[in-house]
Amino acid sequence: MATAGKVIKCRAAVAWEPTAPLMMEEIEVAPSQEGEIQIKVVATGVCHTDLYHLFEGKDKCGFPSVLGHEGAGVVESVGPGVTDFKPGDKAIPLFLSQCGECKFCKCPKTNLCDRNNRTIFHIIFHPLAFFGNVSFSLWQTVINQIAVAKIDDDAPLDRVCLLGCSISTGYGAAVNTAGVIPGSVCAVFGLGAVGLAAVMGCKNAGASHIFAVDINEQIFEKAKIFGATDFLNPKAYNKPISEVLSEMTSGGVDFSLECVGNTEVMRTALESCVKVWGVCVLVGWTNVKDISARPIQLISGKTWKRSLFGGNQVLKARTLLQNWLIDYMTGKIKLDEFITHKMSLEQVNNAVNLMKTGQWNIFSLTSFCRIL
Amino acid sequence: MATAGKVIKCRAAVAWEPTAPLMMEEIEVAPSQEGEIQIKVVATGVCHTDLYHLFEGKDKCGFPSVLGHEGAGVVESVGPGVTDFKPGDKAIPLFLSQCGECKFCKCPKTNLCDRNNRTIFHIIFHPLAFFGNVSFSLWQTVINQIAVAKIDDDAPLDRVCLLGCSISTGYGAAVNTAGVIPGSVCAVFGLGAVGLAAVMGCKNAGASHIFAVDINEQIFEKAKIFGATDFLNPKAYNKPISEVLSEMTSGGVDFSLECVGNTEVMRTALESCVKVWGVCVLVGWTNVKDISARPIQLISGKTWKRSLFGGNQVLKARTLLQNWLIDYMTGKIKLDEFITHKMSLEQVNNAVNLMKTGQWNIFSLTSFCRIL
Repeated sequence: MATAGKVIKCRAAVAWEPTAPLMMEEIEVAPSQEGEIQIKVVATGVCHTDLYHLFEGKDKCGFPSVLGHEGAGVVESVGPGVTDFKPGDKAIPLFLSQCGECKFCKCPKTNLCDRNNRTIFHIIFHPLAFFGNVSFSLWQTVINQIAVAKIDDDAPLDRVCLLGCSISTGYGAAVNTAGVIPGSVCAVFGLGAVGLAAVMGCKNAGASHIFAVDINEQIFEKAKIFGATDFLNPKAYNKPISEVLSEMTSGGVDFSLECVGNTEVMRTALESCVKVWGVCVLVGWTNVKDISARPIQLISGKTWKRSLFGGNQVLKARTLLQNWLIDYMTGKIKLDEFITHKMSLEQVNNAVNLMKTGQWNIFSLTSFCRIL
Repeated sequence: MATAGKVIKCRAAVAWEPTAPLMMEEIEVAPSQEGEIQIKVVATGVCHTDLYHLFEGKDKCGFPSVLGHEGAGVVESVGPGVTDFKPGDKAIPLFLSQCGECKFCKCPKTNLCDRNNRTIFHIIFHPLAFFGNVSFSLWQTVINQIAVAKIDDDAPLDRVCLLGCSISTGYGAAVNTAGVIPGSVCAVFGLGAVGLAAVMGCKNAGASHIFAVDINEQIFEKAKIFGATDFLNPKAYNKPISEVLSEMTSGGVDFSLECVGNTEVMRTALESCVKVWGVCVLVGWTNVKDISARPIQLISGKTWKRSLFGGNQVLKARTLLQNWLIDYMTGKIKLDEFITHKMSLEQVNNAVNLMKTGQWNIFSLTSFCRIL
């Protein structure tokens, strides 16, 4: 396309400092280098991890930065040596790579890739890229092709973008990391998009009971759509919710999934599992405090583990996403039902506030394209 | 035998209160009831868990109590309904049952038995039994046959008693719970009998490198006998031993086993594992403090779990012990090399002190038999 090899100027939502509103700025994006592609971002979700960086973040990204890591778009141009993409392809940039060659890609126990964080966002203007696949800007470049999933031409970008993080993370945590089995009893703590996707994963894996746990009861109706069978508000009980669950399930649930990113809830989720074969999966992201538990919680079979991008299994990031895209196109995975708002990039701070108050949303960036 | 159905008077080492020396007392043991057997204890090991009860214990046993849970002996008499034993059989009483009928015994994911703690030590004199299989007394009764492993007539009781706890716990944690695989790199923290048995388990499972970690360097020579290849004293470094291990192993060990019972070491053991497929098994016993870790430690594949009596697998307690007894008799498992002292029951406080100073030992009770 006409932009190939040229600097692209575009608008992006820049986080200048922690807790401050994002500011719309013009940034300049450098051309693709070897193996890299430029993607025109068409839509993006907002994920709690963006807020984590903005409000709690002690991670390596720093400020100023461009957030967003749940985008979908169209390949604008490709750099030298790119073999997997051509201009016009629809694509979802990922925060996990899949080089196919490193020790992790060859290991059937993880979806990590040793080249995880080596995708580079070449921005001439100074903001840093939050993840390698930053999406709160119109133009995303330069991301290496190993971290991009090619998707079908008929995939609706304003929905499938959600597979770039939240839905894959929650759904995969249930079906892959937890390994929910038919007839099992599950509990999902926290009913944001990740938690609702985990509920959907439990349902699709054949769970007989899915306890949806949240202090926001307004979300229970939504959780029912994704398959939740029982609803618990911890604030409605005068004893720990792990005790309540234990009494309701003869000793605890088979699988619990923490989808909040709160270390106290992570403890509760472990304590809510049945003692012998219970599996507790930490899905929500936080790393500023320790997780803690009494040693006896892990006795004799109970497992405490984390999930990242719904994986820990044989399928790596790009392949996993493409499989789930098929599941969406064939009706096995819901995506449309997750979308509550469509907003422009200029409304990004509204979106952040909606997320903080327990709602979630999607951006459509199309109308803010400006190419110089 | 002549004692069948009668009260037996015998000497036992009684813990009257926390931290106080054990006192030799005469106790009266009631006859066996339905399904129970009397065992004349011939030898017993001393395990750190005895000290845990004595010095840190906040467990359910209370005081006064009779400690010891690593005994071996001869069946003196059997109660009504006992089918698996007859007087004169050699036997190892266990702290885990294997009823074969409960939901746990039928589950291929654990060695727990739902009837775990229901073995009852009927003592007429008031001390409580620490575990169901209390061994710091000459007569052990009344333990249900479901918690007793029958052993071969030619098994030396003063050695195979160690299979009743420490060696099974450490060895099984490596071969079963961790699932050490050939060529892997392992680290064992704490080189008491449990830790040395874990080293032996790593060795027998084919580990290529076994780091033996302890602040007592005198034990390294012993660790070499069981298969340790590298030796680390954390006090010899001015940085965390997890960093030292990470540098020496390109990112961390494949399997780490905590055999101390210290929550800080449990954290270190987790941090010493390689990030993707590392497995950290908590073997040492403590439950008075929380274990803690940064959530990112569990990211994408790393596992943190506990082991109890070397299990978590298909084989349950009695079967497991009988299998390992065969391994000892055929030379696959070492036991003789664990024995550093043979003492009488009257010397129990010496034994406790030796253990506190990093040594371990075995009692021979035979000479203190006194039947009334």
